[in-house]
Amino acid sequence: MADKTQTRALFLCLLICISTTSGNKPRSRRPCKELVFYFHDILYHGYNYQNATSAIVGSPKWGNKTAWAQPFAFGDLIVFDDPITLDNNLHSPPVGRAQGMYAFAQRTDPLMNKTRDISVIGGTGDFFMARGVATLSTDAFEGEVYFRLRVDIRLYECW
Amino acid sequence: MADKTQTRALFLCLLICISTTSGNKPRSRRPCKELVFYFHDILYHGYNYQNATSAIVGSPKWGNKTAWAQPFAFGDLIVFDDPITLDNNLHSPPVGRAQGMYAFAQRTDPLMNKTRDISVIGGTGDFFMARGVATLSTDAFEGEVYFRLRVDIRLYECW
Amino acid sequence: MADKTQTRALFLCLLICISTTSGNKPRSRRPCKELVFYFHDILYHGYNYQNATSAIVGSPKWGNKTAWAQPFAFGDLIVFDDPITLDNNLHSPPVGRAQGMYAFAQRTDPLMNKTRDISVIGGTGDFFMARGVATLSTDAFEGEVYFRLRVDIRLYECW
Repeated sequence: MADKTQTRALFLCLLICISTTSGNKPRSRRPCKELVFYFHDILYHGYNYQNATSAIVGSPKWGNKTAWAQPFAFGDLIVFDDPITLDNNLHSPPVGRAQGMYAFAQRTDPLMNKTRDISVIGGTGDFFMARGVATLSTDAFEGEVYFRLRVDIRLYECW
Repeated sequence: MADKTQTRALFLCLLICISTTSGNKPRSRRPCKELVFYFHDILYHGYNYQNATSAIVGSPKWGNKTAWAQPFAFGDLIVFDDPITLDNNLHSPPVGRAQGMYAFAQRTDPLMNKTRDISVIGGTGDFFMARGVATLSTDAFEGEVYFRLRVDIRLYECW
Repeated sequence: MADKTQTRALFLCLLICISTTSGNKPRSRRPCKELVFYFHDILYHGYNYQNATSAIVGSPKWGNKTAWAQPFAFGDLIVFDDPITLDNNLHSPPVGRAQGMYAFAQRTDPLMNKTRDISVIGGTGDFFMARGVATLSTDAFEGEVYFRLRVDIRLYECW
C-alpha cells in the first residue's frame, strides 16, 4: 500500500516537473513586473537644434534630414535621446532617458496605429535578463516635430 | 522500509527538478515550432519607385543611395517592407510583410554564403515570447535589384 | 505514518519545482560561461580606406561621413567589421570578426564612461540560444580613428 502511494506521488511530481519546465509547453502569461512611462520626442527640423531630442540620420534617395520622407516617412532612420517621464507632461522631472534608434519600415504610418507591440529582449541592472512585451501608443502628435509615446511594459521573465 | 523508498523517490525527483530547470545544463534542441517562408526584396535603384520594396538609407562615403557600395555593399543600410509568401513565387498572395532594417557588415558578400543563421529573439501575438534560430538562404538573386530569401524558422522557446 | 511522510515528500518537491521553474522568482546569477576578448576599430576618416575596419554610414544634418558629428558624435551611425583578438594587441592573430552596426545616441560621450553593460540576446553554433550580459570598456582611444574595446561576456542561459 505504501509503495503504491509513493509511486503515485513520484509520478505526479514528475508530471509537474515536466509540465512546468519544458520549453515546448505553454507557460503563465501573468507578468512578473509592470511599468508605465512616457517618451517625449522632439525631432530636429532645421531650426530647433537647441531643444531637439532626435535627428534623422538616414533617409531614402527621395528624403532629407530635416523632414520626414513622403509618404509615411518610409526609410527614415532616427537616432534619439528622449527624456522619460512618469506622467504625460513634457516638463515633469525625467526619470531616465530613452536612447537608441528606430526606422520607419512600413508604408502606412505606424504612428497612426492604435497600439503596437514590441519585444523587450534583455536588460541590465534592475532589469537584468528581463524579457517581455512593450505596448506603444501615440499619446500626442503635434505636427511633424513633437510626439509623445505611452509605453506599457509587461515583463514575463524576471531574475 | 516505507521511509527508505520515500527518500529515494524524493531524491530522484529533486534530481529531475534540478537537471531540467538549471540554466547551466544543456536543454533539448528539438524545436517547439517550425515555419518556412520566403521574403521578396526589390531594391530601389533610381527608376523603380512604384514597385520597390526596399531602399538604401545609409551608405559609406564611397557609396550612394541607388546602387550598392563597392565592394560587397559594405556599409550599406537598407530599410525594407517586403511581402512574405509561403512558396517561392513573388506573385503568390502574401501572408504578411517583413519590415525592418539590415546592414551589410562584412567584406565578403554575405548573400553568396550558402546559409546563415540569425537569432529569433522575441515575438508578439502567436509568437509571444518566442526564441529560436532562423536559417536564411538566398533562393534567387537577379542582378542587383531582386533577391528572394528562404527563411527556415525553428523556435526552441514557445509560450 | 507512511502516508504522512509521503505527503510531506510530495509537498517539498512541489515547492522546489515551483520555486525553480517560475519566471517570476529570482534565479541564480552565476554565469554558465565567461569570455574575454578585444575589438579593434579603425574608423574611415577619408584617407585610410585600405586599413579602415568601420565607416560612418549615417549622420545628422550637422555631421558628415569622414568625422564624428560634434558634440559627442550624437546621431552618427557606424557599420563595422572589426578583428577580434584574445589579448589587447591589434596585431595578434584574430579569432573572429565583430560585424554589425552601432549608433551614438547620447549627448555625453559614451566611450568615456568607465564601463557600460549591454545585453547578449541570442547566438548560434557554440552559442546556440545564449543569453547574458556583455560589459564593454574602452581599453584604448587614439584620436578619432582607433579605439579598442575590452568585452567581458557573462552568459546566464546556456543550452
